[in-house]
Amino acid sequence: MSSNPFYKKHYTTVDNLTRANVMYLMQRADFMLDVISNKSEHIPLKNKHAAILFYQPSTRTYTSFHAAACRLGMTVTGIQGMSAYSSAVKGETLADTIKTVYQTTGADVIVLRHPDDDSSKTAAKNSYVPVINAGSGKREHPTQALLDLHTIYKNVGRIDNLNIVMVGDHLFGRTTKSLAKLLGLVGENVKVTFVAPKELQVVEEFIGELAQMGLAVELAYDLGTVLDCADVVYMTRVQKEWFEDAGRLEDYKRLKDSFILTPMLAEEMKPESIIMHPLPRTDELPPEVDTNPRARYFKQMRSGLALRMALLESILLAEVV
Amino acid sequence: MSSNPFYKKHYTTVDNLTRANVMYLMQRADFMLDVISNKSEHIPLKNKHAAILFYQPSTRTYTSFHAAACRLGMTVTGIQGMSAYSSAVKGETLADTIKTVYQTTGADVIVLRHPDDDSSKTAAKNSYVPVINAGSGKREHPTQALLDLHTIYKNVGRIDNLNIVMVGDHLFGRTTKSLAKLLGLVGENVKVTFVAPKELQVVEEFIGELAQMGLAVELAYDLGTVLDCADVVYMTRVQKEWFEDAGRLEDYKRLKDSFILTPMLAEEMKPESIIMHPLPRTDELPPEVDTNPRARYFKQMRSGLALRMALLESILLAEVV
Amino acid sequence: MSSNPFYKKHYTTVDNLTRANVMYLMQRADFMLDVISNKSEHIPLKNKHAAILFYQPSTRTYTSFHAAACRLGMTVTGIQGMSAYSSAVKGETLADTIKTVYQTTGADVIVLRHPDDDSSKTAAKNSYVPVINAGSGKREHPTQALLDLHTIYKNVGRIDNLNIVMVGDHLFGRTTKSLAKLLGLVGENVKVTFVAPKELQVVEEFIGELAQMGLAVELAYDLGTVLDCADVVYMTRVQKEWFEDAGRLEDYKRLKDSFILTPMLAEEMKPESIIMHPLPRTDELPPEVDTNPRARYFKQMRSGLALRMALLESILLAEVV
Repeated sequence: MSSNPFYKKHYTTVDNLTRANVMYLMQRADFMLDVISNKSEHIPLKNKHAAILFYQPSTRTYTSFHAAACRLGMTVTGIQGMSAYSSAVKGETLADTIKTVYQTTGADVIVLRHPDDDSSKTAAKNSYVPVINAGSGKREHPTQALLDLHTIYKNVGRIDNLNIVMVGDHLFGRTTKSLAKLLGLVGENVKVTFVAPKELQVVEEFIGELAQMGLAVELAYDLGTVLDCADVVYMTRVQKEWFEDAGRLEDYKRLKDSFILTPMLAEEMKPESIIMHPLPRTDELPPEVDTNPRARYFKQMRSGLALRMALLESILLAEVV
Repeated sequence: MSSNPFYKKHYTTVDNLTRANVMYLMQRADFMLDVISNKSEHIPLKNKHAAILFYQPSTRTYTSFHAAACRLGMTVTGIQGMSAYSSAVKGETLADTIKTVYQTTGADVIVLRHPDDDSSKTAAKNSYVPVINAGSGKREHPTQALLDLHTIYKNVGRIDNLNIVMVGDHLFGRTTKSLAKLLGLVGENVKVTFVAPKELQVVEEFIGELAQMGLAVELAYDLGTVLDCADVVYMTRVQKEWFEDAGRLEDYKRLKDSFILTPMLAEEMKPESIIMHPLPRTDELPPEVDTNPRARYFKQMRSGLALRMALLESILLAEVV
Repeated sequence: MSSNPFYKKHYTTVDNLTRANVMYLMQRADFMLDVISNKSEHIPLKNKHAAILFYQPSTRTYTSFHAAACRLGMTVTGIQGMSAYSSAVKGETLADTIKTVYQTTGADVIVLRHPDDDSSKTAAKNSYVPVINAGSGKREHPTQALLDLHTIYKNVGRIDNLNIVMVGDHLFGRTTKSLAKLLGLVGENVKVTFVAPKELQVVEEFIGELAQMGLAVELAYDLGTVLDCADVVYMTRVQKEWFEDAGRLEDYKRLKDSFILTPMLAEEMKPESIIMHPLPRTDELPPEVDTNPRARYFKQMRSGLALRMALLESILLAEVV
């Protein structure tokens, strides 16, 4: 296999990805999917150690990184309750915590989830070993974007010539924005239609950014009118947390059910199209849709495990055997 | 060894156990006890992964399952604070969480502790891999019942012709009810005497259920009168938690010390009889009894480790080598 | 290598250490440093299990013990939130918890962090396997003292003929007192200068204790005057927690910046001297000092990993191969 562009690099943002780099990872993730389903032994990272530090709750991202590292043969020190347990409560800076955990564990890689937008960059700047951003603040969740892309690559069969409908919350949610940006960076002839209530629609500035990347962008306010030509419908949850923090719980109740993909609406999609969702979901994607053959949101999480295995391996091994 | 009745099955309740199945596990647990005490390497579950999800605190059950899986060679992703850390806080259903954790970890088995009575069945219904109930709500804790039975099997030498005195709380506590039911299912000629204050005594309906299973049942209200012919005295704690939740803390204080197995009372037991307790204890079983040769409550927890190793192995391996 | 004085012993206090014992550990820690930096496989504790029980938050000590055990090939059951998750909330005694965890995990060693001064001794008294004190109450943190000594041994090149300046809080903080005591026990010709505001200065009784051990002790109230002949400057944080608990937050604000090692002051130290800090830090040690060649506080934590590996190995293996 060709030389590995991720070796000994931080992975904190999708911004520096190229099509070649991303395709490399997509193919390694495919390999990992086989490793998982064949239950074969693939432990190239034996004798390496991962430190996984989560300052925010996240079942799926935490368990996914933890299992990914274990499955590759690593030993893992994982802390989910960093905000409660760590020296953050004693006023330690993130820079010091990162240096500390490197020294106390001898970790070969640090995986970080943190509420601050700049956390991941701060960590990378202060780390002697590669840092992987497992979600930072409201903007970046760069492994989510890659796993979403892998779900499309694997289930639609391409990352070009795509018509993607993204639904829900594009103001506070980071998944749709990250995926759109990644498609802008590495895909060709991709059109994204953002569907959302006006209050949660994507902002002008970001639309300009995507257009400059060559993405075709449309906005829509009615889910029913845009489903029939979609290759991918990417649903998202209206996040109660952001509204609560802002003291706007009333707005949440009014908006949360606006854009629901009912079983009936799902039937309007092309037969070969797919439905994605980063999960967790609330009412926007009823469990009745789970049996629709287009549903891929659970497989999407398996792409997450495979992609994180691929990323860990690529960052820690110069040559894949 | 004969064919394995647990392979690829969920284990959510004692209801479907048979004598043959249970004896199979008892013998495998004996084997595991030897593995532990001989410190021999027995890692038949290498390359398999366990997800352990606890929504309620429990030192002993959590550490026991975690160590059991590790000792058999598994990698483990364990989350003790599911209520705080998981997407449950974002409104995710248990069905979705179970599917999610399967996909994000590729787990071969899911171990679940959850406050809802139906949690374990809901999980099993929605899981692609076997689910083990590590305690669900007020009713089931089916590995506790098995480990209790193993303690009797190992320390009394039989599961038939037994006279068992169960003391403490049979209303809110689930251990005595579970063990009684399991003995009804698989034991022969077993008599159970439930000793408790009236407010915490076993309910009529359950007595009928046990009687139908062929168990001889008696109720008693004075510990002193029933000890001399017991083969097993099973003590339990009056659980403060239930009273607190019900706003009845005064009742708790009045009842909690009613049925104490003092060192003097313990001497009235037959020399070859044993004392059990699921622990943690409060005042009902003074530390002075620990040196009584009949005390088996710490060994009982070692049966827990062995039994859980046996169960994990049986569920995940068709043939034991 | 010579016979191992730690085999099958508890390690709960520095009180029983001798110079020979300590030198044995220093050399084993050196070996472990090489293992870590060479990324060589050294798993002498394969098939052994560690239980790590933390009743208090501590990123560095927890991750350090966890990684140390993993790196030596152990399986580990680690619980950071013992206060929240364990049966302590159900009123279980520490003695029972220790016996419980031994039985449920079959652990070969128990590592305990607990807020009570006597916790570690209580645990040792009730344990069938060696207990390591990872911090107990306000007094003992005996692996911290050893790792601090190792940092001196490794970076100054000796544990005798030393002039050590200890700065910050000697009333509530346990690190400076522990290290001073350890130097009194095993070092020769060591002088310690305690620098602190009067309210946080070391108490008379303790000075007497150190003097009896042969340590030369001085007190000082101005950092600037004592730096130029120091071999080691050991900075510590004024711990906000203690003041908060005592309702004296105003005193904290007044005292916390009193003794700051500014980059300019650090330059007054001898070129071959070193700066230590147990971390986390607040204002007393500005990040600008990190690039000073005397700074060893991050390396100090790596000594922590190495030392804990050495200790675990020594306690669990009779003969080092």
